[in-house]
Amino acid sequence: MSTPQHVSSNKLVQTHNLPSLVHRSNVSNMPAQSMTIIQINASQFLNHTYTEADIRTENIPTLSKDSLTWIHLVGITDNDQLHELLQPFNIHELAMEDILSRKQRPKIEDYGHYLFVAARIFVYKKQKLQYNQIYLIIGQNYIITFQFEPLGLLHIIRKYIQHNYSSIYSKGIDFLAYSLLDRIVDDYFVTVDEFDNRVEGLDKRLFSNSNKNLLMSIHQLKRDAISLRRTLSPIRDIIGRIVHNEFSLFSQDIHVYLLDVYDHTQQLMETLDSARDTVTGMMDVHLSYQSNHLNEQMRMLTVITIIVMPLNVLTGIYGMNFDNIPELHWHYGYYIVLGLMATIIISLLIYFYRRHWL
Amino acid sequence: MSTPQHVSSNKLVQTHNLPSLVHRSNVSNMPAQSMTIIQINASQFLNHTYTEADIRTENIPTLSKDSLTWIHLVGITDNDQLHELLQPFNIHELAMEDILSRKQRPKIEDYGHYLFVAARIFVYKKQKLQYNQIYLIIGQNYIITFQFEPLGLLHIIRKYIQHNYSSIYSKGIDFLAYSLLDRIVDDYFVTVDEFDNRVEGLDKRLFSNSNKNLLMSIHQLKRDAISLRRTLSPIRDIIGRIVHNEFSLFSQDIHVYLLDVYDHTQQLMETLDSARDTVTGMMDVHLSYQSNHLNEQMRMLTVITIIVMPLNVLTGIYGMNFDNIPELHWHYGYYIVLGLMATIIISLLIYFYRRHWL
Amino acid sequence: MSTPQHVSSNKLVQTHNLPSLVHRSNVSNMPAQSMTIIQINASQFLNHTYTEADIRTENIPTLSKDSLTWIHLVGITDNDQLHELLQPFNIHELAMEDILSRKQRPKIEDYGHYLFVAARIFVYKKQKLQYNQIYLIIGQNYIITFQFEPLGLLHIIRKYIQHNYSSIYSKGIDFLAYSLLDRIVDDYFVTVDEFDNRVEGLDKRLFSNSNKNLLMSIHQLKRDAISLRRTLSPIRDIIGRIVHNEFSLFSQDIHVYLLDVYDHTQQLMETLDSARDTVTGMMDVHLSYQSNHLNEQMRMLTVITIIVMPLNVLTGIYGMNFDNIPELHWHYGYYIVLGLMATIIISLLIYFYRRHWL
Amino acid sequence: MSTPQHVSSNKLVQTHNLPSLVHRSNVSNMPAQSMTIIQINASQFLNHTYTEADIRTENIPTLSKDSLTWIHLVGITDNDQLHELLQPFNIHELAMEDILSRKQRPKIEDYGHYLFVAARIFVYKKQKLQYNQIYLIIGQNYIITFQFEPLGLLHIIRKYIQHNYSSIYSKGIDFLAYSLLDRIVDDYFVTVDEFDNRVEGLDKRLFSNSNKNLLMSIHQLKRDAISLRRTLSPIRDIIGRIVHNEFSLFSQDIHVYLLDVYDHTQQLMETLDSARDTVTGMMDVHLSYQSNHLNEQMRMLTVITIIVMPLNVLTGIYGMNFDNIPELHWHYGYYIVLGLMATIIISLLIYFYRRHWL
Amino acid sequence: MSTPQHVSSNKLVQTHNLPSLVHRSNVSNMPAQSMTIIQINASQFLNHTYTEADIRTENIPTLSKDSLTWIHLVGITDNDQLHELLQPFNIHELAMEDILSRKQRPKIEDYGHYLFVAARIFVYKKQKLQYNQIYLIIGQNYIITFQFEPLGLLHIIRKYIQHNYSSIYSKGIDFLAYSLLDRIVDDYFVTVDEFDNRVEGLDKRLFSNSNKNLLMSIHQLKRDAISLRRTLSPIRDIIGRIVHNEFSLFSQDIHVYLLDVYDHTQQLMETLDSARDTVTGMMDVHLSYQSNHLNEQMRMLTVITIIVMPLNVLTGIYGMNFDNIPELHWHYGYYIVLGLMATIIISLLIYFYRRHWL
Repeated sequence: MSTPQHVSSNKLVQTHNLPSLVHRSNVSNMPAQSMTIIQINASQFLNHTYTEADIRTENIPTLSKDSLTWIHLVGITDNDQLHELLQPFNIHELAMEDILSRKQRPKIEDYGHYLFVAARIFVYKKQKLQYNQIYLIIGQNYIITFQFEPLGLLHIIRKYIQHNYSSIYSKGIDFLAYSLLDRIVDDYFVTVDEFDNRVEGLDKRLFSNSNKNLLMSIHQLKRDAISLRRTLSPIRDIIGRIVHNEFSLFSQDIHVYLLDVYDHTQQLMETLDSARDTVTGMMDVHLSYQSNHLNEQMRMLTVITIIVMPLNVLTGIYGMNFDNIPELHWHYGYYIVLGLMATIIISLLIYFYRRHWL
Repeated sequence: MSTPQHVSSNKLVQTHNLPSLVHRSNVSNMPAQSMTIIQINASQFLNHTYTEADIRTENIPTLSKDSLTWIHLVGITDNDQLHELLQPFNIHELAMEDILSRKQRPKIEDYGHYLFVAARIFVYKKQKLQYNQIYLIIGQNYIITFQFEPLGLLHIIRKYIQHNYSSIYSKGIDFLAYSLLDRIVDDYFVTVDEFDNRVEGLDKRLFSNSNKNLLMSIHQLKRDAISLRRTLSPIRDIIGRIVHNEFSLFSQDIHVYLLDVYDHTQQLMETLDSARDTVTGMMDVHLSYQSNHLNEQMRMLTVITIIVMPLNVLTGIYGMNFDNIPELHWHYGYYIVLGLMATIIISLLIYFYRRHWL
Repeated sequence: MSTPQHVSSNKLVQTHNLPSLVHRSNVSNMPAQSMTIIQINASQFLNHTYTEADIRTENIPTLSKDSLTWIHLVGITDNDQLHELLQPFNIHELAMEDILSRKQRPKIEDYGHYLFVAARIFVYKKQKLQYNQIYLIIGQNYIITFQFEPLGLLHIIRKYIQHNYSSIYSKGIDFLAYSLLDRIVDDYFVTVDEFDNRVEGLDKRLFSNSNKNLLMSIHQLKRDAISLRRTLSPIRDIIGRIVHNEFSLFSQDIHVYLLDVYDHTQQLMETLDSARDTVTGMMDVHLSYQSNHLNEQMRMLTVITIIVMPLNVLTGIYGMNFDNIPELHWHYGYYIVLGLMATIIISLLIYFYRRHWL
Repeated sequence: MSTPQHVSSNKLVQTHNLPSLVHRSNVSNMPAQSMTIIQINASQFLNHTYTEADIRTENIPTLSKDSLTWIHLVGITDNDQLHELLQPFNIHELAMEDILSRKQRPKIEDYGHYLFVAARIFVYKKQKLQYNQIYLIIGQNYIITFQFEPLGLLHIIRKYIQHNYSSIYSKGIDFLAYSLLDRIVDDYFVTVDEFDNRVEGLDKRLFSNSNKNLLMSIHQLKRDAISLRRTLSPIRDIIGRIVHNEFSLFSQDIHVYLLDVYDHTQQLMETLDSARDTVTGMMDVHLSYQSNHLNEQMRMLTVITIIVMPLNVLTGIYGMNFDNIPELHWHYGYYIVLGLMATIIISLLIYFYRRHWL
Repeated sequence: MSTPQHVSSNKLVQTHNLPSLVHRSNVSNMPAQSMTIIQINASQFLNHTYTEADIRTENIPTLSKDSLTWIHLVGITDNDQLHELLQPFNIHELAMEDILSRKQRPKIEDYGHYLFVAARIFVYKKQKLQYNQIYLIIGQNYIITFQFEPLGLLHIIRKYIQHNYSSIYSKGIDFLAYSLLDRIVDDYFVTVDEFDNRVEGLDKRLFSNSNKNLLMSIHQLKRDAISLRRTLSPIRDIIGRIVHNEFSLFSQDIHVYLLDVYDHTQQLMETLDSARDTVTGMMDVHLSYQSNHLNEQMRMLTVITIIVMPLNVLTGIYGMNFDNIPELHWHYGYYIVLGLMATIIISLLIYFYRRHWL
């Protein structure tokens, strides 16, 4: 009988509260290739990590109905090595081709005795959005996961399993699969939050002075939104198909958990969509703002030009060298002209002030 | 047998006629945490509010089939406290996690012996749109509601229950749940009306002189529309799912009431959508208006420049110091030049007037 | 047996051929409140209008299976009065609440023994688009209609009934209901045609000189399109639901008539949609046109500036007061400079002409 | 048994290869009103055209199960005349109303013993897109077609029937109906090709010098696209409904032919849609291009202004009449100033060249 | 029993890794017309290519249940020749008409004893996107393919068949059909990658100095995206319909392979869609960038104008020839004016610097 309350109290801390990016950087010193095998049953938690030359089929334990096995492979890029390792599991050639590809859109495929899931994790590295491909093979009593680079995924889940192995074992392989999927989706909260923060940050700078960087940033955020959406959308569909009981491997018992993950993907999509709408709007605002600015400058230029030009004509007239310009010989001629110029300036200033040009 | 006419005459005053924001501010002096328990049966209306230390499981009365109980909790943010309080109701861990989250998109989930509903209320506070999370647990004979801050919700519904307890009791827990949902949806009319008023207000200022604030306001309204839509849309879906009899808890008797709430959400969405379309259009109008304005200014600048420039050349020519400039010695040379200048000005003015530049 | 040919020859003249707005203005002198009762059977047409104090329940005749009754109520805004009047018909409280509201989106609701329909009519009054709310209660052998202001609806339908009462009676209450709905939809042709004419009128002014009014008009038409669409869309859905036999009150016999109305709503929607697309395009065209205009002006300004500036420098140089400027003492110096200036002007004009700037 | 190969070799030449617009103009001298009756059976092809006064019911031959009859009516606009002519066919009043209307969106209606189809043909006449309304009544062994103006439709189909009457007779009335629909759809290829050519033509002019006509043309093409789409979309739906066996009149034998027509409408829609997308994009390009152009001009103006202005100041300074300006009396003062001016010009040119402003 | 692992190891190298465009150009020296016949069974691989006059029906071998036959026809454009060649296969006239057309949108049609597939391949030739039409007839034990120009398709598939004939024969004609479709879809990766690269390349140039070419390129890429999408979308639908078991010719055994192709089309569509979104965004960015640029230039022009204009007025004043201008006779008058001018310049520079205009 399932006791959700007990297990859930140990549930993974949702990363949208505590950003787990720290974990990721910590693990970057790990060897390039690694194979971690975690095997649990009602009374035992076994955990062993093999590196480099030890990543061999012989080190994979025999699967038994009495235990759940999670094999976590990192950095396997060689076709032959992969074939050798997966030989005991009778994995389809097409799935193996996918596993070697680093550019596979998220999908779920039912190969009968196992499910094949392709997913992605996004990270903001050095201000740039980058993704890591993740693959899951979910069998009757085992899960195999593939990554090209070590991420925090393994550490967090392993710790969680270690503390709850008995309970997880009783819930079955589908609960373990759920935990992994939940972890992947939760990881998006960090990235989408980061994305959202950038959008908000940009929004605040929107009405400051114009600069090229602003435009560049808006454009980049728009592209980030497209990338994230493009990956999150099929991930949501995958969870949705699991929720709608398309795959018999997932039992009804964990339906409520899966619904929760599905709701999270939904929430992520909506956050993303409104952030994207905001970014799209920002481009329009930026253009309008520039236009406002241009208007202001042009108004200033126009006002100054209109004020100064008659003065230039006036000084030009009395700078001419005609023999017979009577005004030049008036005693107060100069002062009259200065007065006239002042009058012109003041009148035009008043005129423009009244027309709200100043 | 239900007698809708009788009860409905006491139905809640729809807030889109009388803004209920006043109620909300009145209650802001309440203690941070509170637990209000309202219990009704055919002959009795019991109401007690506990604060601070008295918010204990012991103070929650035993539920009986002969009464309807509404427990209203405000400001519960502590995990342990929540677990303790909800212990008698056997609430799923995932629901409790949601209750503690202040950022949960509206959803409805069927946990078998109870429904869990997450919703939001939006308020314009100090010109800014803010939301408050609300959660409902709807059991067979009880409803538990959760809020982080005290809103007017409790007071209005309590008063309504007090005057109609007998009738409500006869209609059952689903009618009480409907009343709460109806109240939440009605509350949106206040906010959407406020939003709509802002849009209309902006629309009137659209063709006045350009200012940055206008642009800022349009941008803000657009974001508000996105926020409101993002919340209202799942709320409508929730009501829609109830209307389509997805949840057995709601009986056919109150179907017509639910349809009415559904229609309200529909109406809200449409008001919001056309307000949003208007706001989107306003950005284009603003840009075009700025462009018109710029055109006008530039026309003015061009006209002035074209008129004055030949005059400058003319005065420049006769300001040169060549020994041999015969015109300078003509007796009426100066007056001829002045006349020429006047001719140039008048001809160009006529020309521009004819080209509709003036 | 139905004889469509016979009846249809008396069918309402479609208002999209003859604008019926004249009718509306004619009836504007009617008293504020009125109740018109039309009762027909195979051999009789009874018609009586009550005003003010006579609008009482007693004056509503007893409904019988042997006759069709149409009760047309205008200007009833009082809750109590409405309750009293509708008391014999056992109308649901929620429907009555809607009837008193002047702002209800079009909808149809099945209350079992009657259908409740909310609709709207749009009119261009003083260049502004305004709407009037209309409600219909369609019972087994009666129809009650509600309006706040007297429109032409009553007069046209009454006349039609008077000439065809026997035939209408034989067709039943659903044909009468169809006639009313058909009339409401036909009325939209007048308004949508007016809207379409405005769009066409604006389109012709689009490439004339820029003015603010154009921008304002485009913006207003866009908003009108949003309003009209927002109302027409649910009206089409209402007719669609009737056509798809959702309501048993409408018999199969008049299916072809309803299909015709449905087709009209479809046609209206499409006219509106393409008019709206045209309006949206006009905003872009306007902006581009303004931009073209600005370009032209700026080209003119640039050309003039570039031509005049070297002349200014030239006159400036020979206006300097240096003791030793040999050219000043050349006999033909002045003429050489004038020639140089002419050369500059002509060369630049040729240059700009070749670059297609002139 | 059907022998598609044989008949199809005589199939109509698809007008998208050979524009059939020539046919249309040839027939423009025909009398305003005409009735052409074509009757075929296994061994006979009868064809008679009646004009003006001879368009009478008596001249319509009795329909028999042993022959297919096609009655083609042109220019019938009188209600009474239409009623008299159609009297033998028992056509519904609503269909007749539609036939007299020249503005009916494409639709198909099943009146039981006959299908009623409304369609349109579009032609570019004098650079303007214009449409002609066509109506079809498809009975068990007869087809009646209606046009307001003589188009090429009749001539091409008649010729085709004349050469294949026996084969067509064996295939039945639905094949004849298909031939007519196929002909109507094929005619759109001419118009959509013409539209597409205009779009391509405009696209080539897009990066030439700006002119108002370009903007006008883009706007007009956009409106043409809206018109064409608005008509083609329901025509596709009509064919689609026939293909999906909604109407029993069309037998399974000609399903593959109908699928072909459906595919053509699909292809037309897609051509139209991408042409429309291109046109929409062209407006943006035009605006950007104008903006580029403005930028260039303004850069030129700015450069010239910045270069000339210091020169003006310099000549201004030494044009002043102060008693004590020592430089004026230097022997090489004038040449120094000229040298300074040359230096300023050259330095600024280098500066602007380096900033890529030149 | 199927052994996917074995066959797949010889699977076609996916062209998105190794661009296969080289292959295509290599084969461009082939004769204009050709007919290649490949026949395989469990033990034999027969391959013969006929050119020109030898492309006759007699050279097509008799089809037998014991072998799979692939007939690859290149450059057949003559109606009679096509009829003669296809005579043994009893192909429908409409399919043959399509085969002769070079402009047919992708579609699949079930003619009972064979499937007819129309597809397209896109190539970037001389910077321009061009397409080639491909047709497939898939019978019970034969496939006929049609191309107008020789592409690499034949060579790659032939080589593949040659190495795996036994295995392919055991899998049946549907696997061969799948291989061809897979090859066509894989070919799109080359083109879409090229398209994507162009988008990325343009994106990098977006914030460099403005030039017309950029605008042209954006516009062209947008049109390319429209073309590619318009073809890929129906291709995806074709594969989708096969995957959903609409056609009995494809057995369940190769379902997983088809799913893989379907996933590829999906991936292509998404790459294309986000590239298109990026391109659309680039147009906006370009416009904003131009606007920024214009702003900058105008600011510079305004600043210079405002600084210089008072200087001009000043020199103008003291260049006037009034008899009585006392300042002219001051000993330091000239220096005072120069000082005043310096003050004006410095003050204005400080002012503009503070307003962030510099």
